Amino acid sequence: MAFHLLSVEEADALRLAQSIVDLREQLGICRRCFNVTSSEECALCRDPKRDGSIVCVVERAQDIAVIERTQEFRGRYHVLGGSISPIGGVGPGQLRIAELGDRIAAEGIVELIVATNPTVEGDVTAMYLARELKPTGVRITRLAMGLPVGGDLDYADELTLGRALTGRMEI
Amino acid sequence: MAFHLLSVEEADALRLAQSIVDLREQLGICRRCFNVTSSEECALCRDPKRDGSIVCVVERAQDIAVIERTQEFRGRYHVLGGSISPIGGVGPGQLRIAELGDRIAAEGIVELIVATNPTVEGDVTAMYLARELKPTGVRITRLAMGLPVGGDLDYADELTLGRALTGRMEI
Repeated sequence: MAFHLLSVEEADALRLAQSIVDLREQLGICRRCFNVTSSEECALCRDPKRDGSIVCVVERAQDIAVIERTQEFRGRYHVLGGSISPIGGVGPGQLRIAELGDRIAAEGIVELIVATNPTVEGDVTAMYLARELKPTGVRITRLAMGLPVGGDLDYADELTLGRALTGRMEI
Repeated sequence: MAFHLLSVEEADALRLAQSIVDLREQLGICRRCFNVTSSEECALCRDPKRDGSIVCVVERAQDIAVIERTQEFRGRYHVLGGSISPIGGVGPGQLRIAELGDRIAAEGIVELIVATNPTVEGDVTAMYLARELKPTGVRITRLAMGLPVGGDLDYADELTLGRALTGRMEI
């Protein structure tokens, strides 16, 4: 990267430097959902057409872009900032769980869709959220685990196929 | 393969030949579920500990082994012999759907778990089975589609993530 910056026009290198300064100066975190934003609240939280009663809980801000691409979700988000991981030294106190609890009552949230990763850490985090937040009366759901669309039974591992069996849906 | 058969002991080559003869002579198809078997009915159909009221419908006999590995299913099976595929020239008449219909009443089947592949052909077959067999009063379910266990949201395609969202489960 250093050699590339020496080989381009000086103006281009300085523009890149200025972009980095602007990025760090202008970008902040949404005070409501902790998404990345350049204003107080992110564009998704400010959009009046989105349903505030249903909130998708993700580990990281970049997961929001992944879910937005499906065009299946029209609610709001909440970024936890990671997942509970005893090995990684991350406890529930380091995640934005208290802030999520505050939002449930303040915004009249009816359902939380826990979209943490389909890993042990993601499962533990989902279970912890369910235990902590169910007393508020909110409905807590989790993304389905099962066969990937377009796949083949032959290539499914036992754990995934087991989840697909227990999570089978009526047609 | 020809050179290998010339290089091994003659007795070994003749034993392989006899094994192929035995395979074709002794192996047949279960008259109930169309699994591969060496007797009239396959070992799974004859096992009295398996629950005959719940039947898993698969495309091919080898899919049975895949589902058995999960150790999550203790019912019986039904092998369709493929999936509906207009491009491949396979219509519903070429699949063992009428035989499945006969089994529902004769064996008191309560639920059919359609475990066709998570492809367009598998979906079409599942929909066709639902339309044809629901009038008998049987419950028809389909393997869940969603995130593979141990995966990452980042690597999920939009279609699979969309199915994981619509198929979300309460925790």
